[in-house]
Amino acid sequence: MPSTAPPFKPLPSGEIVYGDLALTSTSARQKSSWLSNLALVAVGIALICNWNRNTQSYDPLLALVGFSIISYVVTLVLIPLLGPEFVRIGFHGRDLGKKDRPLIPETMGAVCALVYLVTMFFFIPFLFYKYIVTDTSGGGNREQGIDIGSTLLHTGQPMRMFPHSKLAEYLAALLSSFSMLVLGVADDLFDIRWRNKLFMPAIAVLPLIFVYYVDFGVTRVVVPKFVYQLVSPNTAELPVTIDLGVLYYLYMLALAIFLPNSINILAGINGLEAGQAFVIAIFLLINDALYVLPSRLFDVSHPATEAHLLSMYFILPLVAVTFALLRFNWFPASVFVGDTYCYFAGMVLAQVGILGHFAKTLMLFLIPQVFNFIYSAPQLFHLIPCPRHRLPKFNIETGLREPSRVAFPEPPKKLQTVMLKLLASVKLIDIEVDSKSGTVVSASNMTLINLVLTWTGPLREDRLAYVILGIQAGTCIAGLLARHTILPMIFGRDNL
Amino acid sequence: MPSTAPPFKPLPSGEIVYGDLALTSTSARQKSSWLSNLALVAVGIALICNWNRNTQSYDPLLALVGFSIISYVVTLVLIPLLGPEFVRIGFHGRDLGKKDRPLIPETMGAVCALVYLVTMFFFIPFLFYKYIVTDTSGGGNREQGIDIGSTLLHTGQPMRMFPHSKLAEYLAALLSSFSMLVLGVADDLFDIRWRNKLFMPAIAVLPLIFVYYVDFGVTRVVVPKFVYQLVSPNTAELPVTIDLGVLYYLYMLALAIFLPNSINILAGINGLEAGQAFVIAIFLLINDALYVLPSRLFDVSHPATEAHLLSMYFILPLVAVTFALLRFNWFPASVFVGDTYCYFAGMVLAQVGILGHFAKTLMLFLIPQVFNFIYSAPQLFHLIPCPRHRLPKFNIETGLREPSRVAFPEPPKKLQTVMLKLLASVKLIDIEVDSKSGTVVSASNMTLINLVLTWTGPLREDRLAYVILGIQAGTCIAGLLARHTILPMIFGRDNL
Repeated sequence: MPSTAPPFKPLPSGEIVYGDLALTSTSARQKSSWLSNLALVAVGIALICNWNRNTQSYDPLLALVGFSIISYVVTLVLIPLLGPEFVRIGFHGRDLGKKDRPLIPETMGAVCALVYLVTMFFFIPFLFYKYIVTDTSGGGNREQGIDIGSTLLHTGQPMRMFPHSKLAEYLAALLSSFSMLVLGVADDLFDIRWRNKLFMPAIAVLPLIFVYYVDFGVTRVVVPKFVYQLVSPNTAELPVTIDLGVLYYLYMLALAIFLPNSINILAGINGLEAGQAFVIAIFLLINDALYVLPSRLFDVSHPATEAHLLSMYFILPLVAVTFALLRFNWFPASVFVGDTYCYFAGMVLAQVGILGHFAKTLMLFLIPQVFNFIYSAPQLFHLIPCPRHRLPKFNIETGLREPSRVAFPEPPKKLQTVMLKLLASVKLIDIEVDSKSGTVVSASNMTLINLVLTWTGPLREDRLAYVILGIQAGTCIAGLLARHTILPMIFGRDNL
Repeated sequence: MPSTAPPFKPLPSGEIVYGDLALTSTSARQKSSWLSNLALVAVGIALICNWNRNTQSYDPLLALVGFSIISYVVTLVLIPLLGPEFVRIGFHGRDLGKKDRPLIPETMGAVCALVYLVTMFFFIPFLFYKYIVTDTSGGGNREQGIDIGSTLLHTGQPMRMFPHSKLAEYLAALLSSFSMLVLGVADDLFDIRWRNKLFMPAIAVLPLIFVYYVDFGVTRVVVPKFVYQLVSPNTAELPVTIDLGVLYYLYMLALAIFLPNSINILAGINGLEAGQAFVIAIFLLINDALYVLPSRLFDVSHPATEAHLLSMYFILPLVAVTFALLRFNWFPASVFVGDTYCYFAGMVLAQVGILGHFAKTLMLFLIPQVFNFIYSAPQLFHLIPCPRHRLPKFNIETGLREPSRVAFPEPPKKLQTVMLKLLASVKLIDIEVDSKSGTVVSASNMTLINLVLTWTGPLREDRLAYVILGIQAGTCIAGLLARHTILPMIFGRDNL
């Protein structure tokens, strides 16, 4: 007979619960003003009901835009509503980047993830509308459901087949994101050990990779011309692809592990986690649109259109819920997103890359994350001492952020000194050298955030977030351009 | 910059943390002795590797038995390992049915659910082994993956089609169970309001119902002969089914709402929640075996065999993880299962009924749950006053459980008195009547557990659980027999 004691942590008495206050303050109320929300929901519903009588057609993409708008409003309403609840049960953190170090709700990304998933649940029948309304007999038996090409059924009715493989892809993707939501919440609850949680995305992505295997099975990748010419210079005809086989599956696994964790590492500034996911998602949308729009406007078809359309289906609601989250998480933040958000958003981005078969292109949008990981590696692998927290220091007098530093009470070893001085000479770290002995006394911590601060000087938190998101956007633009200009030249073709 | 304060509730000092002690005590250690666990895992692996060279065949069912054995061992090892962690972050409850009212871990069903889901993830490639190994070309392109019957591919290879519809069913079912895990954890964390959580299973089951719609779309149900004869007595030929249409979908929705909640209501005694799910699951397995075994042993085929095989795939691992959980949750419990377990297990049972297309047969195994719900209804809907807790009382002197009672400080209204006296006359409640005025002073609370106690007299908690699980098993046997003996006569046919 359990006397259910809900995990309840009473707040320290006399604390400034910034989040709680901010969430119920008038400014936040204005943010989610009822009139504009209602108007948005009305637009959303109108978009969902886009059946066109004249052309007898229904556009799932428009419907999804409608669903996304509604999911944005729902997230916007739910976050301030649930914030105090989250604080009550113990999901709260102290924002050390403010003078009064307010206590605000943590793990609010879980709300986003849930709204996203429920949206995707409701979207299923709309996505497959044309198959279920015009093409199936409804109360048929099993055989009628099986894909049989465009042949005649034994009932004599012509029936376009129901795309079970597409449904399986869709469900597998949702399953992977759901797993990451659970993992994220578990991590926020239990503080799972680093090495354990590193490999959990690999389990979460299993159904997706299986679906990829049976549906596509494409493990051939395009190779640069010159690489192939190096290997066999005498071949006149250039083969454009090589088969990576099992390596390609390992690459997808690695991507699913890397993306959620890399977003989680490039974090700790108001708005940065949600901001970077938002920017990446927007650029993936643009890349998708390059395939989808021409086929819609000019009725030209491209083999990759379908895959990019599916990618849009997954990204649009992510953009919507992330935007709502950002409004509360931007400086000065009234909620934290939690590891939950980073894992979840990272997995959605990874699964889009996998299902859309542009897992390699995706890397072009992750340059800051890749850089941050490589740059952090010496400290992560303890080649250089790594303090427990490497977040930029908050200067309470100026209210600005400054690079945090790692001190060397013992003089660093010879190899370390060489490494540190080398990096300092190319301005990749900032070191402090003892003027007498010439030994390194301290160095800036090796994260992208600290690096930016050593370049720009102290910045207020929101400026810092703008700069880093600017870098993200800049590298995404460069990546997008490279993808469709330089890389096709190197690889000998563009699949656009 | 979040200073992550993990939701941490320090334990009251000087408390007896029974669960903590019991979980790390030698008796619990013996429970999960390494040698027997290793042996079990070895058996599991052997079953998974059941490729038969002579017949060139692989049996996914045997593989799943292997996976289930391993998932049993994993659950058995994880529960005592994670129990203290759960207590640390605030998932704990006081067992009010013991003299020292020990504090033990709560929500341990979440561990079961996670092990179950990971098991099902890993099982996917084994389930579809024959399609992916012998029948697909591996590195094919998209078209090769599409179901095209047993025709020749454009590659010229004969290829059995990959059953995407089966994969979609499987994934949709996992998605529904995952949703319930999340809902359960959210409920254990936040204590979601009753009316809100009642309808959440309806959202969780949406993908499954959609898959049912496109794959089966069967909404015809068998009607008893006499019903049809009543409606149209002149028809010579008996139609065996009528089309329920949208009503059948509503029925499935209702089932998905009812099952998780009904298990959650018939609860509060050590071992009862997991026990009833275990008994129901075992009887569903027996029912499935009635279809699957004949087709395997005598090579006879039945149209429902496939559906019941799928049902077995979902139930076997549930039985395994539930059995492991029961070993810790049985009297005297060292862990609580939490709402998480009830929701999760209830949803797995419901989805099996839906996918196996025996959603009506399933009801025959739920007689105690249905009875408990109807019997509780007068109190749930406040026709009769309902105290906050209706669990049987723990008599600290005898150590036995006695029926808990609802007192009437004001004399009950006339209608209430009639109702109470009527129920008491058929021994369905126990009432206490004022000898002078003849008014009802108190009555036993209307739950199956209290009812059993009014019949048997005070019982120790484990005896009480045995009696109720005995009733569960008894009604399941009766249901199973009725399903294949009496009902076929009434309905005019047995689909066995």
